[in-house]
Amino acid sequence: MASINLIERILEGFDPVGNGLDNDFVLTKLTAMKGCGCKVPRDVLLQLLETFKTDLVINNEEVDIGLDSCVIPLRHPGLRLVQTTDFFYPLVDDPYIMGRITCANVLSDLYAMGVSECDNMLMLLGVAVALTESQRDIIVRLFIQGFKDAADEADTKIRGGQTVRCPWLLLGGVATSVANESEIIKVDRAVPGDVLVLTKPIGGQVAVNSYEWIKKNNGKIEEFGLDSAKIMTAFKQVCEQMCRLNRNAAKLLHKYEAHSSTDVTGFGILGHAENLARVQKQPVEFIIEKLPIIEYMDEIVDKMIATGGEGFRLFEGRSAETSGGLLIAMSEKNAKEYIQELHSLDRAPAWIIGRVAAKTNDSVARIIPNVLRQSISSSL
Amino acid sequence: MASINLIERILEGFDPVGNGLDNDFVLTKLTAMKGCGCKVPRDVLLQLLETFKTDLVINNEEVDIGLDSCVIPLRHPGLRLVQTTDFFYPLVDDPYIMGRITCANVLSDLYAMGVSECDNMLMLLGVAVALTESQRDIIVRLFIQGFKDAADEADTKIRGGQTVRCPWLLLGGVATSVANESEIIKVDRAVPGDVLVLTKPIGGQVAVNSYEWIKKNNGKIEEFGLDSAKIMTAFKQVCEQMCRLNRNAAKLLHKYEAHSSTDVTGFGILGHAENLARVQKQPVEFIIEKLPIIEYMDEIVDKMIATGGEGFRLFEGRSAETSGGLLIAMSEKNAKEYIQELHSLDRAPAWIIGRVAAKTNDSVARIIPNVLRQSISSSL
Repeated sequence: MASINLIERILEGFDPVGNGLDNDFVLTKLTAMKGCGCKVPRDVLLQLLETFKTDLVINNEEVDIGLDSCVIPLRHPGLRLVQTTDFFYPLVDDPYIMGRITCANVLSDLYAMGVSECDNMLMLLGVAVALTESQRDIIVRLFIQGFKDAADEADTKIRGGQTVRCPWLLLGGVATSVANESEIIKVDRAVPGDVLVLTKPIGGQVAVNSYEWIKKNNGKIEEFGLDSAKIMTAFKQVCEQMCRLNRNAAKLLHKYEAHSSTDVTGFGILGHAENLARVQKQPVEFIIEKLPIIEYMDEIVDKMIATGGEGFRLFEGRSAETSGGLLIAMSEKNAKEYIQELHSLDRAPAWIIGRVAAKTNDSVARIIPNVLRQSISSSL
Repeated sequence: MASINLIERILEGFDPVGNGLDNDFVLTKLTAMKGCGCKVPRDVLLQLLETFKTDLVINNEEVDIGLDSCVIPLRHPGLRLVQTTDFFYPLVDDPYIMGRITCANVLSDLYAMGVSECDNMLMLLGVAVALTESQRDIIVRLFIQGFKDAADEADTKIRGGQTVRCPWLLLGGVATSVANESEIIKVDRAVPGDVLVLTKPIGGQVAVNSYEWIKKNNGKIEEFGLDSAKIMTAFKQVCEQMCRLNRNAAKLLHKYEAHSSTDVTGFGILGHAENLARVQKQPVEFIIEKLPIIEYMDEIVDKMIATGGEGFRLFEGRSAETSGGLLIAMSEKNAKEYIQELHSLDRAPAWIIGRVAAKTNDSVARIIPNVLRQSISSSL
């Protein structure tokens, strides 16, 4: 396969016919749940995982299943196994882009812990039973190519995996690093006075869903009086940011001495802020005062709410992101430099979106009432 | 949850009502494909994985995706990352037993390479969308308990995973070991004169399917004139062997200097023998002369073939096994001692089922015409 220019491909949009598929072929029809929107709700999950509770202390070190990656002291002195897995369903039409997103999304859990070197990737694939052999071959090849290109960009290799048949097209991976302790940042050291940094805008779920309304021609565009051109722009914007690795963001966590870090995915920005708060050594409050949102997505949500809808609970911080940005607590001075240097590396903005306050007991996270919404336009 | 005696539980059979489920609840209805029977066909898979071909040499060492686990030289001298993943769908009714089988099946890929210490397990779970919340909670808890009990037995821990919703109940895991080179056996050293050893009988797919015919009451028992009592016995037999870890079998590979080893799962005994032949340094032929088969399963297959059926292609060596035994090439003298010691540890038989012959070019595997069938009765 010829080399693929990611940004060109995103801007051109996916052409099923040019890729050997029927004109009306839509990858996202191969699932009823999109991307990280398929997660089992967080409270249910925590309850079901109770069985593991007795396992949570090894070698006198707490290892928390709630973190982005598990970190395991190995039999070999000084080394830790850092490992994460993720799988989900297609949320964009282009299997190549889906491969990129899937790989970026899996790697992000390593990056959230400051681990920038992935030693191995496994690829997980459930091939939708409804596909014809010809469709299967086209889609799987494109997906693998995208997954591999993202792995190449991350300087890692795919060395195994599992491929089964499944009613939905299931896509995922496992990322593993055997790291020295110094490669892993401590994510539980947030202190009052820190600020919160976010490295990608939210609103991804709104963007992929409203794009699908256009594709499905299901009347929602007209119902809410939406601007299709703006949705198309937002969709390309979210595709680019979902494909963008959080690797530079991870490397800079060390340089700018981040106190705490996670990535924003299926539980929404507040869900992940809550998860991160829960593991802090010192009781703190993560206060989100500003929500950077992909341009026009806030307007869509406003219109949905105006007609009695939930608007994906975006403003509540509960809308799922796929391959979202890092959410970081660090000193304000460092945050400003972090944002500046990340921008020079990734050519994409990041923002201070809140602060860390003292608390006397259990740590929490919240979004302030009348949170400031910042509309983030595409740089493509 | 109270401690669960595996063998008692297998012998008693699964009682949905006693576990809070409806009387007619059948776990295997939550998938159309059972266990390792869901794999994408081997030739299709190899073709689709072509994209990875350029990746197959790192550090001047070949790492073959076709092996049971990937083995990756790490940045840390002398250490290898050995890793495998597997996921599939329920093939028995009892979610607890399914958890045991799933974990044993994933671990088996490490064990096939002689690696007996697993440093971390991840659990992969797709919760069937058709389940009520109450069913979900019961099933997931039992599954997790079984998975954890098997991990305990393997002296390993579950430290992470992913849980999504899925049309089918999807079950799996990732097993990882960071091992010294000496912990890994070379699986590509079979030589003419070796014998082939198998550590669990085949016929698992026949056993779980014929058991399902009874549960579904779909007329097949009558159609083929089958003995339900014998099927029930075979089903319990296969449950026990699917739950049985190949860990002792793995440890003894070192002691008895195995030249080559794999585990028998979704591609059937011949498929895995072929995979193993393909990676041998020296051209050889794996010749299977005897098929140890779970008692009565050969009779079922005979009856299916007599009426024009394929009989799961059991006698061709193509019937899928789930959490099957190890298939090993070693010297005849060592094989006899291996089998004896394994029996004393696992209280289960193993057999010499064939031999390794010289070949002038590409290695192959085959089953001889009129292969001897050995009926293996349950020891429960």
